Amino acid sequence: MKNHKGLLIVISGPSAVGKGTICKELFKKGIDNLELSISATTRKPRHSETDGVNYHFIDKNKFQEMIDNGEFLEYALVYDNYYGTPKKYVIDKINEGKDVILEIDIQGAKQVKENYDDGIFIFIMPPSLKELKKRIFKRGTEAQKDIDKRMRCAFDEIQQAEYYNYIVVNDDLHKAVENIYCIIKAEKCKLSRYNFDLSEFKEEL
Amino acid sequence: MKNHKGLLIVISGPSAVGKGTICKELFKKGIDNLELSISATTRKPRHSETDGVNYHFIDKNKFQEMIDNGEFLEYALVYDNYYGTPKKYVIDKINEGKDVILEIDIQGAKQVKENYDDGIFIFIMPPSLKELKKRIFKRGTEAQKDIDKRMRCAFDEIQQAEYYNYIVVNDDLHKAVENIYCIIKAEKCKLSRYNFDLSEFKEEL
Repeated sequence: MKNHKGLLIVISGPSAVGKGTICKELFKKGIDNLELSISATTRKPRHSETDGVNYHFIDKNKFQEMIDNGEFLEYALVYDNYYGTPKKYVIDKINEGKDVILEIDIQGAKQVKENYDDGIFIFIMPPSLKELKKRIFKRGTEAQKDIDKRMRCAFDEIQQAEYYNYIVVNDDLHKAVENIYCIIKAEKCKLSRYNFDLSEFKEEL
Repeated sequence: MKNHKGLLIVISGPSAVGKGTICKELFKKGIDNLELSISATTRKPRHSETDGVNYHFIDKNKFQEMIDNGEFLEYALVYDNYYGTPKKYVIDKINEGKDVILEIDIQGAKQVKENYDDGIFIFIMPPSLKELKKRIFKRGTEAQKDIDKRMRCAFDEIQQAEYYNYIVVNDDLHKAVENIYCIIKAEKCKLSRYNFDLSEFKEEL
């Protein structure tokens, strides 16, 4: 009676909100059939990276061709390299019954929504901008002078939350992970995930 | 930023599917602010029962008056006694921020849906009619000759599942309880449960 199709779960939010850590912890919970999407990129693989595991490594011509053919759920140019999520890869997984997690920034999530509206969009919200600022400082990658700009950008991004299905506040990692775990479980119980063929019951009468 | 209002969670399904056991186990998980709705009835209290704890015990005139004034989310006449869910009691709890569980039969759930559309309707599905039959026999309250009638009735009730928000198959008690726990957690993360006032964030800029 259950629909065999998997879910596309988009986890997004302002940078430094903790998306990566949340996803890592989520996978530790060992949910059946859950997979992290693998991006395609034009940058060169690092020593520790394997094609098809960390990324799908492809060259710029191929990437451009895929853009032209609308083969990405989302893509972006970061400095000199392209990064993107190949549509076919994700759709194939979903059709196999796998639930696919996409951990991406706000811009990427927006593109996915335009290309695949049946996704489940989860916005990771910082408890406050003050707390987000603290986390950015902790990373130590940002110069003090850029922080104000980052905060204004984060505020703009937070306003995008209203286009998502769910909001998960990351004030406590354990609780945030549990909430996302629950969202996935609950989505799988939704009426729309059933094909509602009652013939098996009827045969029993 | 979070909406203060609680949820109305309706747990229903064919008789003997295990609604009562599921609810009992759900409360053992100790979810904050979760309460079981207390029905009103015109039957006399038993020795062990306390007014306002097990039931709201009221007389027939009062019950009839409440029916006439549309003060029930649902009610039914069972043999010679009325049973019903007082609307005000539930709405007051929800406005206090409590999540209220209603464990009721299919007819009751249908009435609730007509009276309060913002509820979360969860259908507990038996894994098969054969299994449901086994559970009815186990209860030992049904004569063999009534079983076929019960099964046809259960099949009719199962067809109502398409009007619910979620379907939880009760093939494994632990899993069924976890799914309902997750549905409640996930519903609380839904965008619509937020009032989306970002002024606190704005003040931080």
